[in-house]
Amino acid sequence: MNTIEQTVANIPREFSEETALAVRERWDALTKPRGSLGLLENCVVKLAGIQGRTDPRVDRRCMYVFCGDHGITEEGVSLYPSVVTREMVKNFVRGGAAINVICRQLSIQTRIVDAGVAGEKFEGVMDRRVAEGTRNFLRGPAMAREEAVIAMERGIELAEGAAREFDLVGVGEMGIGNTTSASALLCALTGATPEEAAGRGTGLEDAGVTKKRLVLEAALALHRIDSKDPMSVVSAFGGFEIAMMAGFILGAARYRLPVVVDGFIGGAAFLVAREFCPGIGEHVFFGHRSAERAHERLLVEAGAAPLLNLELRLGEGTGAALAMGLLTSAVALYREMATFAEALVSDIEVQEKKSK
Amino acid sequence: MNTIEQTVANIPREFSEETALAVRERWDALTKPRGSLGLLENCVVKLAGIQGRTDPRVDRRCMYVFCGDHGITEEGVSLYPSVVTREMVKNFVRGGAAINVICRQLSIQTRIVDAGVAGEKFEGVMDRRVAEGTRNFLRGPAMAREEAVIAMERGIELAEGAAREFDLVGVGEMGIGNTTSASALLCALTGATPEEAAGRGTGLEDAGVTKKRLVLEAALALHRIDSKDPMSVVSAFGGFEIAMMAGFILGAARYRLPVVVDGFIGGAAFLVAREFCPGIGEHVFFGHRSAERAHERLLVEAGAAPLLNLELRLGEGTGAALAMGLLTSAVALYREMATFAEALVSDIEVQEKKSK
Repeated sequence: MNTIEQTVANIPREFSEETALAVRERWDALTKPRGSLGLLENCVVKLAGIQGRTDPRVDRRCMYVFCGDHGITEEGVSLYPSVVTREMVKNFVRGGAAINVICRQLSIQTRIVDAGVAGEKFEGVMDRRVAEGTRNFLRGPAMAREEAVIAMERGIELAEGAAREFDLVGVGEMGIGNTTSASALLCALTGATPEEAAGRGTGLEDAGVTKKRLVLEAALALHRIDSKDPMSVVSAFGGFEIAMMAGFILGAARYRLPVVVDGFIGGAAFLVAREFCPGIGEHVFFGHRSAERAHERLLVEAGAAPLLNLELRLGEGTGAALAMGLLTSAVALYREMATFAEALVSDIEVQEKKSK
Repeated sequence: MNTIEQTVANIPREFSEETALAVRERWDALTKPRGSLGLLENCVVKLAGIQGRTDPRVDRRCMYVFCGDHGITEEGVSLYPSVVTREMVKNFVRGGAAINVICRQLSIQTRIVDAGVAGEKFEGVMDRRVAEGTRNFLRGPAMAREEAVIAMERGIELAEGAAREFDLVGVGEMGIGNTTSASALLCALTGATPEEAAGRGTGLEDAGVTKKRLVLEAALALHRIDSKDPMSVVSAFGGFEIAMMAGFILGAARYRLPVVVDGFIGGAAFLVAREFCPGIGEHVFFGHRSAERAHERLLVEAGAAPLLNLELRLGEGTGAALAMGLLTSAVALYREMATFAEALVSDIEVQEKKSK
């Protein structure tokens, strides 16, 4: 077995029903009407299942931001030139980007991962670069099959390290052009049409969306998609950061590390991961419903119910980080609220004190 | 003019367009695609308008939890006996309730307000008690008209104090039976039917919901509703904590203090406040969409778009507090993100350093 197969083989297939019951029982013992904390209660049950413990922990949190460049930008599918990927990586390192601010505010560490950015290497960034950006997938595959394998394996390896350091992680990304890769993956893996999959990305006007649709149509016609061979799909459309995220998601599940997926691009990585492990959804949280039109379709395909719906369309992991804040609140509630028994005991103590 | 009229007369009718433009301009200068932070961007524009400053602050935050008892509980409209209101107030003081945990976790102070709880007074609680619970509104008005006025005035006074201490506040509540009061207010103020307005509250089964509907039908038949006299509606159905929240919402607007309304009960208080000031919606955030069925209708009537949808139905201010966390993140993003100009400058500095 190769690394990916080995990882998938070791992903827990079922969570303990006993653990889930114990968590539900504690929720019901807390001073509130049963079930009244809604999705927050369900999230803690899920965290407990993933971590395999009735007292899940989310104290050590980290956001992994996977960065990569995309050859498809040659076709003018993005408002921004490719070099903005580099600029934003530097912004991440300096701490000035949206994801830095949210993570500082919510006590979430950040790791910036170079999965395949073009140009000089960076200081202060985890160098997992597979190549200097993907190739234009209107002229051939975005990457070699071996490169797709390497990207996924590096993601798995990163998750193994993350599981030693953290209790809860998020995955975000940066890569000019990557909504086009994500849209192509959505079409190839689910049967969505280019019409359904092409959206505004960072802010395209109607003409830009039309161009993107035409690029997707041409790309899907060019590449032979074998739905039983997801690696061929990844190598056809990229990108390095998406493949590495897909590996990371599998690795996190393998090491019982709960992972929060961000928006549309992260969702595409999830779809790739699911091709390798159909039950992966049990191990993953979806951070938010993004304003990117095709995200709705992707979420339906993924069977996902995201925690937030704030019309974000920034990426970087911003929606996932905010959702990690909610998960942190949920676990605090679960751990710190008084039970009815405790409240009663305190009451009796207070009355005894008074009657003395 | 009485206190309420004076307060309403002093609520700012329009926010400065200049302020809104300046905030939008700063958002567009930050290192992200335009508008990509969605509702978070709109929230900061709104905060700036309310506070009347282009650099809104939310550093000092507090949740006010208004508590009161309801005579209508005699009709068996709640799963819990009235005494649970008292028990929960004590739980708030001890810090063991859900709202305490969330507020601790998000650095939000809490103030527990006794608006009209039955029984001995509490230590550690702001005593603004109007009476020891409302009367059963199937036998007459829940409170005297003068009591409704006092409750609202005390809410205004509390908001005046809050505006000196805090930048952002939430309103939550505790009061066994108060979904029935809130449902009656929804019917009386918007024309919703008892069928539409009766929900499960803390967890009623179908039979309980039917009983609640019958109580609402009888109550609406009993009381003459004069839609031009909202004070008569409040005195008919209560409760003290709802009337005080309504006053608090008006007072907060008067003192340019942004306020986050929690769920169904807070929404009913908002509807009352709006009867006194039709433009009050500009001054208020809605924390979340609750699982209480009639909340959907209430939100439509209120023209409200809540920030969260987590199927909560606990009250206490829990949904509002979580939304205050999102507002805090939004303001941090607005204040701390790098602008494109700063990012460029830093880039040039880095290059100069290298070339030396």
